[in-house]
Amino acid sequence: MLSKNRISEIRKLSQKKFREESGLFIVEGTKSVMDLLRSELIVNELYATEGWMEKSGYAQLHCKIPCEIITEKELERISCLTTPQEVLAIAVIPDYDIQQINYQENILVLDGIRDPGNLGTIIRTADWFGIRQVVCSPDCVELTNPKTIQATMGSFSRIRVFYTDLPTFLSSEKIQGRIYGTFMNGKSIQDIVFQQTDLIIIGNEANGISPAVEKCINEKIHIPSQNRKGEKAESLNASIAAAISMYELCGKKG
Amino acid sequence: MLSKNRISEIRKLSQKKFREESGLFIVEGTKSVMDLLRSELIVNELYATEGWMEKSGYAQLHCKIPCEIITEKELERISCLTTPQEVLAIAVIPDYDIQQINYQENILVLDGIRDPGNLGTIIRTADWFGIRQVVCSPDCVELTNPKTIQATMGSFSRIRVFYTDLPTFLSSEKIQGRIYGTFMNGKSIQDIVFQQTDLIIIGNEANGISPAVEKCINEKIHIPSQNRKGEKAESLNASIAAAISMYELCGKKG
Repeated sequence: MLSKNRISEIRKLSQKKFREESGLFIVEGTKSVMDLLRSELIVNELYATEGWMEKSGYAQLHCKIPCEIITEKELERISCLTTPQEVLAIAVIPDYDIQQINYQENILVLDGIRDPGNLGTIIRTADWFGIRQVVCSPDCVELTNPKTIQATMGSFSRIRVFYTDLPTFLSSEKIQGRIYGTFMNGKSIQDIVFQQTDLIIIGNEANGISPAVEKCINEKIHIPSQNRKGEKAESLNASIAAAISMYELCGKKG
Repeated sequence: MLSKNRISEIRKLSQKKFREESGLFIVEGTKSVMDLLRSELIVNELYATEGWMEKSGYAQLHCKIPCEIITEKELERISCLTTPQEVLAIAVIPDYDIQQINYQENILVLDGIRDPGNLGTIIRTADWFGIRQVVCSPDCVELTNPKTIQATMGSFSRIRVFYTDLPTFLSSEKIQGRIYGTFMNGKSIQDIVFQQTDLIIIGNEANGISPAVEKCINEKIHIPSQNRKGEKAESLNASIAAAISMYELCGKKG
């Protein structure tokens, strides 16, 4: 049985402040937790309902993390979700050092993505297209926000997400490819022949790429809209712009 | 000043039941409201703060709908948003008849899209790529859900969204193109040469395209993922799959 104190400590992890203090974050739902257990991330605690233990395939994982059986009522009290999903893990926030970046492989760069759903969806899409490195500006929402983790559908466990000052990172001599940024104008993304070492930057939902980051860009690109009479959408959602960029960057080799 | 009774009536429009009863829905924020006022949709009421009236450009619209000035406190009480956005309109739910479909133009078909954010993002992306007709199965979330309207960023005012039984619609002799459905397998979307009269179907977030709709499909297609060692994302978010499909269907003519 979970103590009142333990419940309160777990609940606090839905807040950024307490995640930073403890270095821990919450992962919920079968898909996400199973992907987490298969990954290299460190899992501290695992809580599940009896029903989950029987049907989840957890036993087959031969996982070293013991699973504490809790009631659905208890799960409701520690879950960040409106509809709790039978299993909840507490994991250690990974600390990826920007020195570990592999400049030979695809890199996606995010400048000021604030919506946790957008960040999670972008990470999930990156995973689909084989992009394993995402570099975020410090003002991007955190990877470990429960809504971000939820939207990644398990991909948080496979993608390295780095937080660093972008102008410094983009000035590194180690970057071998070209640096592209998505704007409302610029060369059509369809006219670019991308190399594996190229970088694409996606900007903030409302304000796009910041001026300091814009200075580091080799070429501005845009996703062409269909011209037609009258009004049309002013812009694309950031996760959609990122998806089409990744599709052009590396989705076409598959 | 808004009466208690009026506030209560407006608040109720955040619920599907009351939208259906009244035939009305809520639109919030400058971008969405301005797009609404420029559209052919019928607006019944308009509420805004004094600050909005001064800076919004509303006066230049020569709009026949009178705007009632309300305080920020009052706006908070009628808004569906956590952070109310200065202006709120009440509009009549459009009733698009499936008979009005133009089979010569692009049509996107949605089978069981349940997440309001996904539906809104899909409509915004359709608008960007010049697709003006979206046909939804009856179990798709409603266009007029406040979260859907919000995610369209004004595109709800330009795109016709039809709700109808999909197997009946897809059996229509009026359809001149081929019917494609997105699956986890099938022909790569990159190998298809799309015609303007072709239809693409996007399935439910968790279960994909339903068996009854699958029977109507001429060809299964998929968005190729990047093969690499180890685990990868199992699927794409529905709004991402829809965006890449629309990009291939008609984003490349721009």
